[in-house]
Amino acid sequence: MSPPELPEHADVLDAARRIAGRVLNTPAVCRDSLNETLGFQVFFKCENQQRTGSFKFRGATNAVARLAGNGSAAAPVVTTHSSGNHGAALALAASQAGFESEIVVPRGANPLKRAAVSRYGGRIRDCGETLAERESVLASVIEACHALYVPPYDHPDIIAGQGTAALELAAAVPDLETVWVPVGGGGLASGTLLALSESRVVVRGVEPALADDAYWSLRLGAIQPQKPPVTVADGLRTALGRIPFALFQKLGLTIDTVSEEEILAAQSLLWQRLKLVVEPSGAVPLAGLLAAARKDPAGFRGTRHGVILSGGNALFPGPSV
Amino acid sequence: MSPPELPEHADVLDAARRIAGRVLNTPAVCRDSLNETLGFQVFFKCENQQRTGSFKFRGATNAVARLAGNGSAAAPVVTTHSSGNHGAALALAASQAGFESEIVVPRGANPLKRAAVSRYGGRIRDCGETLAERESVLASVIEACHALYVPPYDHPDIIAGQGTAALELAAAVPDLETVWVPVGGGGLASGTLLALSESRVVVRGVEPALADDAYWSLRLGAIQPQKPPVTVADGLRTALGRIPFALFQKLGLTIDTVSEEEILAAQSLLWQRLKLVVEPSGAVPLAGLLAAARKDPAGFRGTRHGVILSGGNALFPGPSV
Repeated sequence: MSPPELPEHADVLDAARRIAGRVLNTPAVCRDSLNETLGFQVFFKCENQQRTGSFKFRGATNAVARLAGNGSAAAPVVTTHSSGNHGAALALAASQAGFESEIVVPRGANPLKRAAVSRYGGRIRDCGETLAERESVLASVIEACHALYVPPYDHPDIIAGQGTAALELAAAVPDLETVWVPVGGGGLASGTLLALSESRVVVRGVEPALADDAYWSLRLGAIQPQKPPVTVADGLRTALGRIPFALFQKLGLTIDTVSEEEILAAQSLLWQRLKLVVEPSGAVPLAGLLAAARKDPAGFRGTRHGVILSGGNALFPGPSV
Repeated sequence: MSPPELPEHADVLDAARRIAGRVLNTPAVCRDSLNETLGFQVFFKCENQQRTGSFKFRGATNAVARLAGNGSAAAPVVTTHSSGNHGAALALAASQAGFESEIVVPRGANPLKRAAVSRYGGRIRDCGETLAERESVLASVIEACHALYVPPYDHPDIIAGQGTAALELAAAVPDLETVWVPVGGGGLASGTLLALSESRVVVRGVEPALADDAYWSLRLGAIQPQKPPVTVADGLRTALGRIPFALFQKLGLTIDTVSEEEILAAQSLLWQRLKLVVEPSGAVPLAGLLAAARKDPAGFRGTRHGVILSGGNALFPGPSV
């Protein structure tokens, strides 16, 4: 395989202009009481409050806008396979652009995320749980509907769109030392790297120890297979993409890993102290920041850090609405 | 008993000046996707994100500032009995003013709210569950510590402080037709009435049907006893105060009641669609608004409404932090 073509910093700036007014410039929340407890400042970029409940809407909106802009409107159906946030994001991005969407969803997917696909105007195509079953249904949809496939992360337009969250965060909060992001397929992490590649902000990636394929891929210099999908951070069970991995290598990314207990404790902190509903995957970067600060309290004292709360589509007890 | 002395609109303005910079001017959140679903606009005043997790911090801060300002600093201990948010609010307000605080808390109280009292510097005094047991321990604390009692709602300074949330909401969002508030002891509802008494905004109170003492008090023209404390909206199980009731009568308040199912559905909507952690009591006014809109969809179409999300100290599964 030839090396993939990599998006650049300018592509993130273009994406930001392209999707302005379509995606929310989400708040960057900072709480004195939490900062006092920690001994340093944290600014939370609330992508859990982005439209469709995650940052995925940024990349999907950028990708769909590019399709709409380059004459592909002759085939106004887009499709993807997704057990999670990308499907809902693509459904809404398509609806807003006047496209139709066919979203291939495993039968066992989070029912909240399934419901969101329908609410945003996407048609659900059921599939089985394995990647082979997903891809087979996806291929039949592409064939039958002449649908354009919009992948969840391994695409330059998606990566550039995801990077816009970090652009907004850095614009709203100057002088951050680091920005912490979760690493799943790598779309958000590589987009964030690109977005901040011309600043002095250091991007820090965090993975569940139970899904640390990116950590090992960087250590070994080649993409490693993902582990069985058991981490509570369901959005990060996916395999690392080729373009994200190439960007991690090119721009340099440090990845920390966190335990399931650390993820759940960070999620609790966000819910109980900040009153923000964040899904486990969205709590992973805070878990990484807290673990790093515990190891070096003196080094962190008085510093300023950003954390991207990537999504809020958490299951919880209570009636579905 | 002589009629109580009632606070006035100007007292809310004074309170706003007094507590400025000490309490958060919380966001007024509005979501296009929810508005599109509903057919009208709703602005949520996020007192769930107020310091200590509820609007109670406004009244407590105002009351403590008044004590500090009138020479009572000779007795720098404040006390109250509280199974909930007022205790945590008074503890932090006292800490910030350089006062000590003794908070009388029933042994069976929500552990999250107990922990908050300690975190904010309050000393917990355990008591039994009945009002008599609470008052007996409170009396002994007042006696032993020469402590000043700061009641949870039946006090002009508390009411004036609670009204500042509505002042901020009306300033941030012009042309609201209504502002919806929960009714428990009546501090927030009467403060909101006062705050908006010189505007054209109509205040609407909402109670759980299982705790509808204020509804019946207004219908019968005299304070009625509260029902057994079984509603899921634990912050609204308290009995109506004399000053709030007198303000309800003087300024005119319409109170709707909602079922437990309606409360839980509204809480789910806030968690799932707005990604905001709101306790059941804080979801009660939205439940009332949604019920009213269901009865009169044409009348609500295109209108603008405010809802005060009064608190976010909800119990939920996961480790305590």
